[in-house]
Amino acid sequence: MGHDGASGVEPGTDGGQKSSVSEDLDLRAINTIRSLSIDMIQAANSGHPGTPLGVAPVAYALWNDVLRYDPADPLWPSRDRFVLSAGHASALLYSLLHLSGVSAVGEQAAEDPRRKHAVTLDDLRTFRQLGSVCPGHPEYGLTSGVETTTGPLGQGLANSVGMALAGRWLAARYDRGAELFGFDVWALAGDGCLMEGIAAEAASLAGHQQLSNLCWIYDRNQITIDGSTDITFTENVPERFASYGWSVVEVADANDLSSVRAALESARAERSKPTLVIVQSHIGFGSPVIDSPKAHGEALGPENVAKTKEALGLPLEDFFVDPRAEEAFAKGLRARGEAEHRAWVESFNAYRAAHPDLAHELESLWAGRLPDGWDADLPAFEASTKGEATRASSSTVLNALSQRIPWLVGGSADLAGSNKTWLNGEGMGTMSPEDPGGRNINYGIREHAAAAVASGLALCGLQSYWATFLIFSDYARPAMRLSALMELPVLHVFTHDSIGVGEDGPTHQPIEHLASLRAMPNLWVFRPADSNEVTEAWKSALSHRHGPSLLALSRQNLPVLDREQYSSASGAARGAYVLAEATGGAPSVLLLATGSEVALALEARSVLEAEGIPTRVVSMPCLELFAEQDGDYRASVLPPEVRARVSIELGAGLGWDRFVGDAGEIVAMTSFGASAPASDLATHFGFTTETVVAAARRSRAIANT
Amino acid sequence: MGHDGASGVEPGTDGGQKSSVSEDLDLRAINTIRSLSIDMIQAANSGHPGTPLGVAPVAYALWNDVLRYDPADPLWPSRDRFVLSAGHASALLYSLLHLSGVSAVGEQAAEDPRRKHAVTLDDLRTFRQLGSVCPGHPEYGLTSGVETTTGPLGQGLANSVGMALAGRWLAARYDRGAELFGFDVWALAGDGCLMEGIAAEAASLAGHQQLSNLCWIYDRNQITIDGSTDITFTENVPERFASYGWSVVEVADANDLSSVRAALESARAERSKPTLVIVQSHIGFGSPVIDSPKAHGEALGPENVAKTKEALGLPLEDFFVDPRAEEAFAKGLRARGEAEHRAWVESFNAYRAAHPDLAHELESLWAGRLPDGWDADLPAFEASTKGEATRASSSTVLNALSQRIPWLVGGSADLAGSNKTWLNGEGMGTMSPEDPGGRNINYGIREHAAAAVASGLALCGLQSYWATFLIFSDYARPAMRLSALMELPVLHVFTHDSIGVGEDGPTHQPIEHLASLRAMPNLWVFRPADSNEVTEAWKSALSHRHGPSLLALSRQNLPVLDREQYSSASGAARGAYVLAEATGGAPSVLLLATGSEVALALEARSVLEAEGIPTRVVSMPCLELFAEQDGDYRASVLPPEVRARVSIELGAGLGWDRFVGDAGEIVAMTSFGASAPASDLATHFGFTTETVVAAARRSRAIANT
Repeated sequence: MGHDGASGVEPGTDGGQKSSVSEDLDLRAINTIRSLSIDMIQAANSGHPGTPLGVAPVAYALWNDVLRYDPADPLWPSRDRFVLSAGHASALLYSLLHLSGVSAVGEQAAEDPRRKHAVTLDDLRTFRQLGSVCPGHPEYGLTSGVETTTGPLGQGLANSVGMALAGRWLAARYDRGAELFGFDVWALAGDGCLMEGIAAEAASLAGHQQLSNLCWIYDRNQITIDGSTDITFTENVPERFASYGWSVVEVADANDLSSVRAALESARAERSKPTLVIVQSHIGFGSPVIDSPKAHGEALGPENVAKTKEALGLPLEDFFVDPRAEEAFAKGLRARGEAEHRAWVESFNAYRAAHPDLAHELESLWAGRLPDGWDADLPAFEASTKGEATRASSSTVLNALSQRIPWLVGGSADLAGSNKTWLNGEGMGTMSPEDPGGRNINYGIREHAAAAVASGLALCGLQSYWATFLIFSDYARPAMRLSALMELPVLHVFTHDSIGVGEDGPTHQPIEHLASLRAMPNLWVFRPADSNEVTEAWKSALSHRHGPSLLALSRQNLPVLDREQYSSASGAARGAYVLAEATGGAPSVLLLATGSEVALALEARSVLEAEGIPTRVVSMPCLELFAEQDGDYRASVLPPEVRARVSIELGAGLGWDRFVGDAGEIVAMTSFGASAPASDLATHFGFTTETVVAAARRSRAIANT
Repeated sequence: MGHDGASGVEPGTDGGQKSSVSEDLDLRAINTIRSLSIDMIQAANSGHPGTPLGVAPVAYALWNDVLRYDPADPLWPSRDRFVLSAGHASALLYSLLHLSGVSAVGEQAAEDPRRKHAVTLDDLRTFRQLGSVCPGHPEYGLTSGVETTTGPLGQGLANSVGMALAGRWLAARYDRGAELFGFDVWALAGDGCLMEGIAAEAASLAGHQQLSNLCWIYDRNQITIDGSTDITFTENVPERFASYGWSVVEVADANDLSSVRAALESARAERSKPTLVIVQSHIGFGSPVIDSPKAHGEALGPENVAKTKEALGLPLEDFFVDPRAEEAFAKGLRARGEAEHRAWVESFNAYRAAHPDLAHELESLWAGRLPDGWDADLPAFEASTKGEATRASSSTVLNALSQRIPWLVGGSADLAGSNKTWLNGEGMGTMSPEDPGGRNINYGIREHAAAAVASGLALCGLQSYWATFLIFSDYARPAMRLSALMELPVLHVFTHDSIGVGEDGPTHQPIEHLASLRAMPNLWVFRPADSNEVTEAWKSALSHRHGPSLLALSRQNLPVLDREQYSSASGAARGAYVLAEATGGAPSVLLLATGSEVALALEARSVLEAEGIPTRVVSMPCLELFAEQDGDYRASVLPPEVRARVSIELGAGLGWDRFVGDAGEIVAMTSFGASAPASDLATHFGFTTETVVAAARRSRAIANT
């Protein structure tokens, strides 16, 4: 890890085992963390007291003696990141944030997009209540000092790998000898996190990447909700992590501060690999339910709260804050952080003088903005009946963007050639121990970790993307959901977006995926119809700074529409637009389609118009974006008086009733797919001009009755 | 593993290293597998030749010299299971099935639910074409000899753990000294499978369970689609599996049949833990693209097919079958399998005489039926305004069922107490090395593996279930999808089904989940409104033998409806039913609701009726089941002439337009949830009587214009 010599407070001479304050202050602080945590949970009558009680000494030692962090500026770019992967222990984190005095962000400016609240003593009293900045699980973007949203197990660990990659990448690209970055990333996890598959994927990737700036602290209390870990979790964790290429350090007792500190210092000193610090702890330490699953997920009850305080030698008073606990943080974390931060600001000022362009880039990156002119070179595609696959057009767009957005980084879960997400430009490189500033990431066949790593990169300001087949978005949904909940501008790039996959068959053909992803709040789902809509989709997606976007791209060629004949693709920026107006301008029927089915809609339109039926084709690449348009625009695209409507999409029909209405028809998949050449499947499953035309006739008949 | 002394053919005396036939026949068979595989792929001009070429000797050695399998009866319950987890190597499997002569199942009876096709030479020619029994990835239920559907990586491995648990469970419950079961399970996987998190979860669980009847064969060719595994997969796999408690055996060369056999025999001889056999192979062996990612996922091309055949010393003829290859399988697998099967039939006949009841049970289990009277003791619940959580009622129903269905087994992913899925009855036990016949399974915090293990159990005839919070269904979607694609009667039990979760907040509150799961073909989603609908939901779900079902259950209490006042809960068996008819019988507005919102709909009905608006409440616990009803019934529940409609569901509104129509209103969640007591959240998000009543008034106004 980094920065071990940069501390503003003299480190201990015995391997960092000494406190930066005193043993008395240490104990006061630790027990105050404990008592505040159980008080919060008792006040809410809901929460998880066991982990805060057990692991408080470890969290304290990390924060007060090790963490590079200035509570006065929780957005300091060079800060160490602390991830509470065991998010149910949120009370622990809120106690720490309060006692260490982490400041609010942007409170003066209500519109500050980075606005985050400090945790006051009153906030602790509102734990788990509506509107509290202390919700049940830590929420990024709400509470100052919360680096990522956690709770679903394993996710924070995988985020931390993305953060560590980001720190190393930022240092490689920007440091220029100035040590601006090189921060360390610390994640605290329990047995549950380590059992999850995503943690295994993330650990393997971190080991491969030799992320020496990463430390996972494993709070090993051997108790899960259903009982002792003996009932199902008996693997040899140290051996497992050694197999991933990690350093493993064990601490026999979480209350042995000196050993805890030594372990954390050894993680910081490690220069060639990530470190797992395994700390044996007692869930519910100090309480009558110590070492019991009962300590895990419910308030202790007033009686046991009192007994716990007694056992810890604390006053019974609710929300008691020992002044010496605050003193401990003032003398430890705050003093050190302030000094380190001050030194850093001086460095950065010198850096800005020496590298104004790079400093300007960094200021954009820190603010979550893209660089000026990021969309200056976006390609326009020539009309072509042969066309090209939208995944191929996407490659062209992505590579153009990569030249303009220096911090655009990403890759595929072992499908770079199929997803066409490789950055080919000179010097793009591959992110690795040898080339930490590389722009391409080989995530491996680890979709779940890939999505969470992409969020970790974004949490450190990088514009990240990752890719796989649309079908395998299923492997990554929990992490995608968190990117949506955190409103991160992560790009999820999914190719092979329908039965157009062809021969690989139903295991590889998405059916329910578009509908199921559209159901997720905050996620924008783009399914462009041709190459020029791909350009627009990337542009809209990257412009969307407060939420993730998804691109669903075709494996197969799609015609590049002649925009002299049809409307400009710029209409895609409004989510849906009239692509081909009905002859005469008064449509008798509307054909609504996305992606590969837009060309089919145009073919059906020709047939219908030849029959004298004025037919409008609406391309709908992003339903979420369309929903954000004003009612007039929406009514201009989908006039309420035109009730004859057909939607066409190679996926489940769920959700299309909203657009086609009572008289409408939905051409959709009603079963899983099959293995065959794509053209045979289109016929087999009724995605033909005839089917669409017949549906249009039926809808007209219904609309006219 | 088991049965090593039961072979009908004398095993080799040097540790099983000798062929059961001859070196010449071995080589002919192996190379015929190779040439058939590349011919299939070339004919389709699509597929994955690399793995079949590389791993053919291993697959051959396993099938012809080790596997306990009678090709004449591919449903023989005591057969070893072979799982091709690397499903993209399907050509290898089809070649094996053809050459070894695996018979069709149920071809005489078109309605035989077990009907599965044999693979003829003509079928190989139709590889990856519409209607072929040789689809792109192996599909369970279509092709005789395919034990599970694979392709999405890692899934087959996790299925194999379920199969191994099932084999051990069946032996523990039924063997009574007769060795009817105790089959072994063999899975073949590549680098991709091992990188997936689900494989890590499954391996950890298998190690904990000490599944000595399980062997994973890791085809280590160190090539994935994006290149060498060096680019991202450098963990120490043997050490990793040792950490899980597995035995690890390495074979340096896949073409060294003697070593391959020795390794497989050592796996079979292992008595205390699962075995990982690591075989170093060369992707695309024999072809000009050996050891290259090019060998992975596309046809070799006619020229390279020819060169490969030349290099292997084979005639150039398409789909050439060396008669000596068939001779090899006749003398090896078929002779051995027939003898073993014959001996088993004798054993079973004796067993049937000694244990007629158990034999009868087994015959039901093998046929996929539930035992007679399985639903005889289902509970009815007394009306109660205090009510109870549907998860609690579910526990009552599940425990009643467990007494009647001896092979009902399952458990929770570490939330047994919260999901209320524990089987409490006497002798239920916990499935473990010490109690292999236990009925409760501690899946651990491994949702993805849990769902796939549940499928593996079902594939061996057990009635399986698994449970977690509804939010965490996201972790298991790929495995759930495969249960739906395979049409397995797995039960996915999900509690905490809405923002009713309360304080745990948005990370734990499902929003998009109901909609997104309803979008999945073949999956029945039940969301019962009260305890008696829970009984009906379990009954319908278990009656559904050709697809999985999902139960979405409340954390919070729901009133047990007075069925004297309202319709009988038996209406739930039709998916949706009129729960409360409008006064006078002619509704002016319909309120449609599921689960916890049905009580809210009834409250709103009272207000509306008091205003003189005749209001019908329709409870819709299973939309899929409702869709299966005839049109008359559906129209009787949702009369087309009643256009004023409101749907109420504590989830995303996607999909409800279908039921409420153009004049309808949807009361739904339009954002993520929040952390607060559930009642505060209901008010905050507008799930109140007032909101519903207002929506009904609006809808009436629209309908009346």
